[in-house]
Amino acid sequence: MLMDFYELTMANGYFVKGFKDTWAVFDMFYRKNPDNGGYVIAAGLEQLIEYVQNMNFTDDDIKYLESKKIFDPGFLEYLRNFKFTGTIEAVPEGTIVYPNTPLVTVTAPVIEAQLMETMLLICINFQSLIATKASRICRAAGNNVIMEFGARRAQGPDAAIYGARACYIGGVNATATALADINYGVPAIGTMAHSWIQFFPSEYESFKAYAEVFPDACTLLIDTYDILNSGLPNAIKVAHEVLEPMGKRLKGVRIDSGDLAYFSKKIRKRLDEEGLEDCNIVVSNSVDEYLIDSLNKQGARINSYGVGERMITSKSDPVFGGVYKLAAVEDVTADGDVKKFIPKIKISENVEKITNPGKKKLWRIYSKETGYGLADMLTLDYEEIDGDGVTPFIDETKPWKKMKFKNVIAKPLQVKIFDKGELVYKLPELKDIREFVKFQLQNTVWQEEQRFANPHTHYLDLSLELYKVKTELLSQGSFNDN
Amino acid sequence: MLMDFYELTMANGYFVKGFKDTWAVFDMFYRKNPDNGGYVIAAGLEQLIEYVQNMNFTDDDIKYLESKKIFDPGFLEYLRNFKFTGTIEAVPEGTIVYPNTPLVTVTAPVIEAQLMETMLLICINFQSLIATKASRICRAAGNNVIMEFGARRAQGPDAAIYGARACYIGGVNATATALADINYGVPAIGTMAHSWIQFFPSEYESFKAYAEVFPDACTLLIDTYDILNSGLPNAIKVAHEVLEPMGKRLKGVRIDSGDLAYFSKKIRKRLDEEGLEDCNIVVSNSVDEYLIDSLNKQGARINSYGVGERMITSKSDPVFGGVYKLAAVEDVTADGDVKKFIPKIKISENVEKITNPGKKKLWRIYSKETGYGLADMLTLDYEEIDGDGVTPFIDETKPWKKMKFKNVIAKPLQVKIFDKGELVYKLPELKDIREFVKFQLQNTVWQEEQRFANPHTHYLDLSLELYKVKTELLSQGSFNDN
Repeated sequence: MLMDFYELTMANGYFVKGFKDTWAVFDMFYRKNPDNGGYVIAAGLEQLIEYVQNMNFTDDDIKYLESKKIFDPGFLEYLRNFKFTGTIEAVPEGTIVYPNTPLVTVTAPVIEAQLMETMLLICINFQSLIATKASRICRAAGNNVIMEFGARRAQGPDAAIYGARACYIGGVNATATALADINYGVPAIGTMAHSWIQFFPSEYESFKAYAEVFPDACTLLIDTYDILNSGLPNAIKVAHEVLEPMGKRLKGVRIDSGDLAYFSKKIRKRLDEEGLEDCNIVVSNSVDEYLIDSLNKQGARINSYGVGERMITSKSDPVFGGVYKLAAVEDVTADGDVKKFIPKIKISENVEKITNPGKKKLWRIYSKETGYGLADMLTLDYEEIDGDGVTPFIDETKPWKKMKFKNVIAKPLQVKIFDKGELVYKLPELKDIREFVKFQLQNTVWQEEQRFANPHTHYLDLSLELYKVKTELLSQGSFNDN
Repeated sequence: MLMDFYELTMANGYFVKGFKDTWAVFDMFYRKNPDNGGYVIAAGLEQLIEYVQNMNFTDDDIKYLESKKIFDPGFLEYLRNFKFTGTIEAVPEGTIVYPNTPLVTVTAPVIEAQLMETMLLICINFQSLIATKASRICRAAGNNVIMEFGARRAQGPDAAIYGARACYIGGVNATATALADINYGVPAIGTMAHSWIQFFPSEYESFKAYAEVFPDACTLLIDTYDILNSGLPNAIKVAHEVLEPMGKRLKGVRIDSGDLAYFSKKIRKRLDEEGLEDCNIVVSNSVDEYLIDSLNKQGARINSYGVGERMITSKSDPVFGGVYKLAAVEDVTADGDVKKFIPKIKISENVEKITNPGKKKLWRIYSKETGYGLADMLTLDYEEIDGDGVTPFIDETKPWKKMKFKNVIAKPLQVKIFDKGELVYKLPELKDIREFVKFQLQNTVWQEEQRFANPHTHYLDLSLELYKVKTELLSQGSFNDN
């Protein structure tokens, strides 16, 4: 029942008007990369799959709907036996994607397709947003370690867990959230809060106690009272007097306040003078990709970043505007075993809200020479693309040009997830999704698309046939029959 | 197990070092009002209470911790039998609050208090953020209706549900999210998406079908193809030809794109000419308090706003930076039945991160004459305030002045929620929380604090005694003993 109430009123309407068995095609896509970036990492499919497998209405749900006194009894009976029977195609999690391309396509009886809208969007929107943000932050950090520290500022418990999962997909090395480790195997790490230090009569005693309990994983938080005059000297003392006699090393010192560039350089120098070259410097405090970039420029000596609120909420751009739009409706007058679909369009006063009609196929065109993804291409679902310049296409922003790709490989991006209600997709391991992201960013996505400022816009082209369908629907305009 | 891993490492440390039975006092507070506003609505306490009542560790949790090979077996046994036995005081949900005042105070064995940190912050941070944002948007809308439409852009499923709950506390009239109605009684509403209109062969047929199925609640979405040339005429035709013959009225028309001021005025005129003066105009599309303010200035004719992503994520300021800090530790050397606490402070390189030490009491000072809240005041927990100018206080920003309140009423703001592990608080109904917010904004909170731009800063004063404790701890500095 986590759905918009209008899904239910519309579903009731379709039922009452006799469209229970009419199929429809819906596309989920987004219009703009967050943070004006060059790409998005698709994520959240696993949670969507879980949701679809478990979609059902309990007696209490039915009772609730009955109490509204607007739903048809036949419709409520239908909900009682609800099960998803349609087909879902989607890009695998971790796929690098671009605006206006279908990440998920649902082909199903219209009521089933409609009822999953809200959760489909919640699953894909949030995790794609956070995976993408994490990817930006990890890129800024280069080979340094990024740890996800955001749970306490996450927008609710799910956001903490799914957010940690998405951050891992995007490239972070570890999380502070234990449950993300238990549920998804995102490695959990953590040492101490300021409260640990305050609890003891002195900072030194608190450090000593921690080193004694965790000699193998001792990272000390050194900014509770005074970094250079108290925290750092006390940490060094513990390294020499507590850990070294046990044959152990101080693993790290962490600061959560102050000027991170200034202090990290001072700290590095003192640690090195003390023979603690292997002690890592860990920082936190409002870190994001912009701050990391700037710290790098100032020569900060940081090994590892704890990133909290700015990653787990994608603070600089906290909304991923994925939408779910009707693309086609079954032609119930058509004969034959294979369903035929009538393409549908939404026009809108805002040009950027006009949709791509029809049941479509999404392709990525790779250069045979470099392996880079040169463009994405939308065709109607029965079209094929060959890689040797035979298939012409149209760039919508320059429709007067008809172009052909040469010396390329064209690969469909979506895979089948559900077929007639059955899950036919083997879910990958989370770490493999993470590796897939890394692979693409290193091998198939242009560096120019990975720039923070004014990245290259990935091309999206339409096949001639799809472009024809679209322009015809646009010229028919509003179908106004009054 | 939705907790930061470091809560567990610290807890293990306290256990091993023999502090299992040592009590501590933690305060949850925040430092800055979101959107540079004048106040925050405290929310999320109900979810925190549910969490505390159910805090426990399953066999699987223990196994997971064992697998890390860093936890003491005695500690894991302790977790197996974990139950919260402490005291929690908090401001009731819906209380208007200000920076640096304790919204929640936990007095408990240090391990228990530490382990709840993450969830406490998740519960209070997110809902307080969203309730506050909703309150701003509702204030901008005046007597017009605000509907919460944000689920699909919420940061995860919990964010959709708890967000809808928080929006209702903040003043919205209804939600689009069915589950928020089922779980919390937030009235759910909804009509149709663009897909409904696209599904039918023509816009008119789609409107007609909807009116026939829902004659009593017919709000039509009129921007799928062309607002003024198609959507509006079709809606008017349905009003006259379908609804009126049934003795029904067209309840509303909705637009989700285009210039909302321009179109709402055009639509109002046409509707009125057609005798549809009672038909509401509903708008959505990136609405927030700033847009509503601006639409009002342009004379827009809007009855009701659907507010989505900008409210459910608090887009313009999506992080509520509530923190949970150690304020005092039990003096285990003290005699007597009543525990004594040693005040603790965190100093930090960033002055705004310095904490108020000690077990404290939070008061609000109301003018006897006007009923307005003049200031908040922090005292040590055993201090009393009288309202007739006897108790002197200090404004930290002007510590050279010692002042007294006259002709005021001083009321403690926190109430006891848990007493020695037992819930002693009767949870209010959600609608009563919402009414409480309304009451305060109308009767006890200065209009000057409700301004969007540069609102009046609510005063926070310290008792002389608390100020003395704080300055002493500050001057002792870092307790540096090396």
